[in-house]
Amino acid sequence: MNSSRCAACKHLRRRCPSDCIFSPYFPSNNPQRFAFVHKIYGASNVGKILQDLPVNLRSKAADTLCYEASRRIEDPVYGVVRELTNLDEEIQKAHCQLARIRAQIAVIQARDEVDNVNNPNFFPPQND
Amino acid sequence: MNSSRCAACKHLRRRCPSDCIFSPYFPSNNPQRFAFVHKIYGASNVGKILQDLPVNLRSKAADTLCYEASRRIEDPVYGVVRELTNLDEEIQKAHCQLARIRAQIAVIQARDEVDNVNNPNFFPPQND
Repeated sequence: MNSSRCAACKHLRRRCPSDCIFSPYFPSNNPQRFAFVHKIYGASNVGKILQDLPVNLRSKAADTLCYEASRRIEDPVYGVVRELTNLDEEIQKAHCQLARIRAQIAVIQARDEVDNVNNPNFFPPQND
Repeated sequence: MNSSRCAACKHLRRRCPSDCIFSPYFPSNNPQRFAFVHKIYGASNVGKILQDLPVNLRSKAADTLCYEASRRIEDPVYGVVRELTNLDEEIQKAHCQLARIRAQIAVIQARDEVDNVNNPNFFPPQND
Protein backbone atom coordinates (compact mmCIF):
# COMPACT_ATOMS: atom_id res chain seq x y z
CA MET A 1 0.00 0.00 0.00
CA ASN A 2 1.41 3.39 -1.00
CA SER A 3 0.33 5.21 2.17
CA SER A 4 2.33 2.85 4.39
CA ARG A 5 5.63 3.69 2.67
CA CYS A 6 8.11 5.73 4.71
CA ALA A 7 9.27 9.15 3.51
CA ALA A 8 12.51 7.64 2.14
CA CYS A 9 10.79 4.95 0.07
CA LYS A 10 8.24 7.49 -1.19
CA HIS A 11 11.07 9.83 -2.16
CA LEU A 12 12.99 7.01 -3.84
CA ARG A 13 9.79 5.72 -5.47
CA ARG A 14 10.29 2.21 -4.27
CA ARG A 15 8.42 -0.38 -2.23
CA CYS A 16 8.97 0.03 1.52
CA PRO A 17 10.20 -3.33 2.81
CA SER A 18 9.14 -4.52 6.26
CA ASP A 19 12.75 -4.23 7.46
CA CYS A 20 13.32 -0.83 5.81
CA ILE A 21 16.36 0.84 7.41
CA PHE A 22 14.82 4.30 6.94
CA SER A 23 11.23 3.63 7.95
CA PRO A 24 11.51 4.11 11.77
CA TYR A 25 13.39 7.41 11.39
CA PHE A 26 11.82 8.97 8.33
CA PRO A 27 8.04 8.83 8.74
CA SER A 28 5.87 9.53 5.74
CA ASN A 29 4.35 12.62 7.38
CA ASN A 30 7.70 14.44 7.27
CA PRO A 31 8.96 14.14 3.70
CA GLN A 32 11.35 17.10 4.07
CA ARG A 33 13.38 15.30 6.72
CA PHE A 34 14.42 12.64 4.22
CA ALA A 35 14.73 15.13 1.37
CA PHE A 36 17.39 17.00 3.36
CA VAL A 37 19.61 13.99 4.10
CA HIS A 38 19.08 12.61 0.61
CA LYS A 39 20.26 15.84 -0.98
CA ILE A 40 23.40 16.13 1.14
CA TYR A 41 24.47 12.55 1.92
CA GLY A 42 22.53 10.42 -0.53
CA ALA A 43 20.19 7.62 0.53
CA SER A 44 22.84 4.94 0.34
CA ASN A 45 25.28 6.75 2.66
CA VAL A 46 22.55 7.48 5.20
CA GLY A 47 21.43 3.85 5.05
CA LYS A 48 25.02 2.69 5.59
CA ILE A 49 25.55 4.98 8.59
CA LEU A 50 22.31 3.81 10.20
CA GLN A 51 22.94 0.15 9.40
CA ASP A 52 26.37 0.25 11.05
CA LEU A 53 24.89 1.52 14.34
CA PRO A 54 23.13 -0.37 17.12
CA VAL A 55 19.36 0.03 16.75
CA ASN A 56 19.04 2.17 19.90
CA LEU A 57 21.40 4.83 18.48
CA ARG A 58 19.94 5.11 15.00
CA SER A 59 17.20 7.58 15.85
CA LYS A 60 19.71 10.06 17.32
CA ALA A 61 22.01 9.57 14.33
CA ALA A 62 19.11 10.26 11.94
CA ASP A 63 18.31 13.42 13.91
CA THR A 64 21.87 14.75 13.81
CA LEU A 65 22.31 13.85 10.12
CA CYS A 66 19.08 15.68 9.36
CA TYR A 67 20.21 18.68 11.39
CA GLU A 68 23.59 18.88 9.64
CA ALA A 69 21.98 18.40 6.24
CA SER A 70 19.45 21.17 6.84
CA ARG A 71 22.25 23.53 7.90
CA ARG A 72 24.31 22.63 4.82
CA ILE A 73 21.32 23.36 2.58
CA GLU A 74 20.82 26.74 4.28
CA ASP A 75 24.52 27.55 4.17
CA PRO A 76 26.34 25.47 1.54
CA VAL A 77 29.74 26.96 2.36
CA TYR A 78 29.87 26.61 6.15
CA GLY A 79 26.96 24.34 7.07
CA VAL A 80 26.82 23.60 10.77
CA VAL A 81 30.44 24.81 11.13
CA ARG A 82 29.05 28.37 11.01
CA GLU A 83 27.25 27.67 14.29
CA LEU A 84 30.39 26.18 15.79
CA THR A 85 32.32 29.32 14.90
CA ASN A 86 29.59 31.56 16.33
CA LEU A 87 29.40 29.57 19.58
CA ASP A 88 33.17 29.64 19.84
CA GLU A 89 33.15 33.43 19.53
CA GLU A 90 30.37 33.64 22.13
CA ILE A 91 32.49 31.57 24.54
CA GLN A 92 35.51 33.80 23.96
CA LYS A 93 33.35 36.84 24.74
CA ALA A 94 31.93 35.24 27.89
CA HIS A 95 35.44 34.36 29.07
CA CYS A 96 36.63 37.93 28.41
CA GLN A 97 33.65 39.26 30.39
CA LEU A 98 34.50 36.87 33.23
CA ALA A 99 38.13 38.01 33.24
CA ARG A 100 37.08 41.68 33.24
CA ILE A 101 34.61 41.14 36.07
CA ARG A 102 37.16 39.17 38.12
CA ALA A 103 39.60 42.05 37.69
CA GLN A 104 36.83 44.43 38.81
CA ILE A 105 36.25 42.30 41.92
CA ALA A 106 39.96 42.30 42.70
CA VAL A 107 39.98 46.12 42.50
CA ILE A 108 36.92 46.42 44.76
CA GLN A 109 38.37 43.98 47.28
CA ALA A 110 41.74 45.77 47.30
CA ARG A 111 39.97 49.12 47.87
CA ASP A 112 37.91 47.47 50.60
CA GLU A 113 41.08 46.32 52.36
CA VAL A 114 42.68 49.77 52.10
CA ASP A 115 39.49 51.32 53.55
CA ASN A 116 39.54 48.84 56.43
CA VAL A 117 43.15 49.71 57.22
CA ASN A 118 42.48 53.46 57.04
CA ASN A 119 39.17 53.38 58.88
CA PRO A 120 39.32 50.58 61.43
CA ASN A 121 36.00 50.30 63.17
CA PHE A 122 37.18 51.80 66.52
CA PHE A 123 33.92 53.59 67.10
CA PRO A 124 31.19 51.19 66.18
CA PRO A 125 27.93 52.99 65.47
CA GLN A 126 25.69 53.38 68.52
CA ASN A 127 22.04 52.57 68.47
CA ASP A 128 19.80 55.56 69.16
CA MET B 1 50.25 10.88 -15.84
CA ASN B 2 49.14 9.12 -12.69
CA SER B 3 51.09 11.37 -10.31
CA SER B 4 49.24 14.48 -11.50
CA ARG B 5 45.84 13.11 -10.53
CA CYS B 6 44.15 14.74 -7.55
CA ALA B 7 43.27 12.72 -4.45
CA ALA B 8 39.66 12.39 -5.59
CA CYS B 9 40.50 11.04 -9.04
CA LYS B 10 43.08 8.69 -7.54
CA HIS B 11 40.49 7.46 -5.04
CA LEU B 12 37.88 7.05 -7.78
CA ARG B 13 40.47 5.45 -10.09
CA ARG B 14 39.70 7.76 -12.95
CA ARG B 15 41.54 10.21 -15.17
CA CYS B 16 41.82 13.68 -13.62
CA PRO B 17 40.41 16.15 -16.15
CA SER B 18 41.97 19.58 -16.50
CA ASP B 19 38.75 21.14 -15.17
CA CYS B 20 38.36 18.61 -12.35
CA ILE B 21 35.99 20.03 -9.71
CA PHE B 22 37.90 18.28 -6.92
CA SER B 23 41.47 18.91 -7.97
CA PRO B 24 42.04 22.37 -6.38
CA TYR B 25 40.62 21.26 -3.03
CA PHE B 26 41.77 17.66 -2.73
CA PRO B 27 45.49 17.54 -3.51
CA SER B 28 47.09 14.18 -4.14
CA ASN B 29 49.35 14.54 -1.08
CA ASN B 30 46.34 14.38 1.27
CA PRO B 31 44.35 11.29 0.24
CA GLN B 32 42.55 11.06 3.60
CA ARG B 33 40.84 14.41 3.06
CA PHE B 34 38.95 13.05 0.07
CA ALA B 35 38.46 9.63 1.67
CA PHE B 36 36.55 11.32 4.52
CA VAL B 37 34.12 13.27 2.36
CA HIS B 38 33.71 10.35 -0.04
CA LYS B 39 32.73 8.02 2.77
CA ILE B 40 30.16 10.39 4.28
CA TYR B 41 28.76 12.39 1.37
CA GLY B 42 29.81 10.50 -1.72
CA ALA B 43 31.88 12.02 -4.52
CA SER B 44 28.88 13.07 -6.57
CA ASN B 45 27.25 15.03 -3.72
CA VAL B 46 30.53 16.78 -2.85
CA GLY B 47 31.04 17.61 -6.53
CA LYS B 48 27.50 19.01 -6.75
CA ILE B 49 27.92 21.19 -3.64
CA LEU B 50 31.23 22.60 -4.94
CA GLN B 51 29.90 23.08 -8.48
CA ASP B 52 26.94 25.11 -7.23
CA LEU B 53 29.20 27.58 -5.41
CA PRO B 54 31.20 30.52 -6.75
CA VAL B 55 34.84 29.48 -7.23
CA ASN B 56 36.09 31.72 -4.39
CA LEU B 57 33.90 29.91 -1.83
CA ARG B 58 34.67 26.33 -2.85
CA SER B 59 37.86 25.97 -0.83
CA LYS B 60 36.09 26.94 2.41
CA ALA B 61 33.18 24.62 1.58
CA ALA B 62 35.62 21.73 0.96
CA ASP B 63 37.25 22.47 4.33
CA THR B 64 33.99 22.49 6.26
CA LEU B 65 32.69 19.37 4.46
CA CYS B 66 35.92 17.61 5.31
CA TYR B 67 35.67 18.74 8.92
CA GLU B 68 32.09 17.54 9.30
CA ALA B 69 32.88 14.26 7.56
CA SER B 70 35.86 13.57 9.83
CA ARG B 71 33.69 14.24 12.90
CA ARG B 72 30.96 11.93 11.59
CA ILE B 73 33.52 9.17 11.05
CA GLU B 74 34.83 9.64 14.60
CA ASP B 75 31.35 9.82 16.07
CA PRO B 76 28.77 8.27 13.74
CA VAL B 77 25.85 9.06 16.06
CA TYR B 78 26.42 12.74 16.82
CA GLY B 79 29.09 13.90 14.35
CA VAL B 80 29.87 17.58 14.69
CA VAL B 81 26.62 18.07 16.64
CA ARG B 82 28.45 16.64 19.68
CA GLU B 83 30.74 19.67 19.58
CA LEU B 84 27.78 22.02 19.24
CA THR B 85 26.19 20.47 22.32
CA ASN B 86 29.45 20.70 24.27
CA LEU B 87 30.01 24.33 23.29
CA ASP B 88 26.43 25.13 24.19
CA GLU B 89 26.93 23.63 27.65
CA GLU B 90 30.18 25.58 28.03
CA ILE B 91 28.32 28.80 27.22
CA GLN B 92 25.59 28.00 29.75
CA LYS B 93 28.29 27.41 32.39
CA ALA B 94 30.09 30.66 31.52
CA HIS B 95 26.80 32.58 31.75
CA CYS B 96 26.05 30.97 35.14
CA GLN B 97 29.54 31.94 36.35
CA LEU B 98 28.96 35.50 35.12
CA ALA B 99 25.62 35.69 36.93
CA ARG B 100 27.16 34.32 40.14
CA ILE B 101 30.07 36.76 39.96
CA ARG B 102 27.76 39.71 39.26
CA ALA B 103 25.74 38.73 42.33
CA GLN B 104 29.01 38.57 44.30
CA ILE B 105 29.93 42.08 43.12
CA ALA B 106 26.50 43.38 44.12
CA VAL B 107 27.00 41.93 47.63
CA ILE B 108 30.50 43.45 47.94
CA GLN B 109 29.27 46.83 46.73
CA ALA B 110 26.29 46.77 49.10
CA ARG B 111 28.62 45.91 52.03
CA ASP B 112 30.95 48.67 50.89
CA GLU B 113 28.09 51.18 51.01
CA VAL B 114 27.00 50.01 54.48
CA ASP B 115 30.62 50.33 55.70
CA ASN B 116 30.83 53.87 54.29
CA VAL B 117 27.63 54.85 56.11
CA ASN B 118 28.80 53.30 59.39
CA ASN B 119 32.39 54.53 59.21
CA PRO B 120 32.37 57.89 57.45
CA ASN B 121 35.90 59.07 57.07
CA PHE B 122 35.70 61.80 59.81
CA PHE B 123 39.24 61.18 61.02
CA PRO B 124 41.39 60.77 57.97
CA PRO B 125 44.62 58.96 58.79
CA GLN B 126 47.48 61.30 59.70
CA ASN B 127 50.89 61.02 58.20
CA ASP B 128 53.64 60.24 60.73
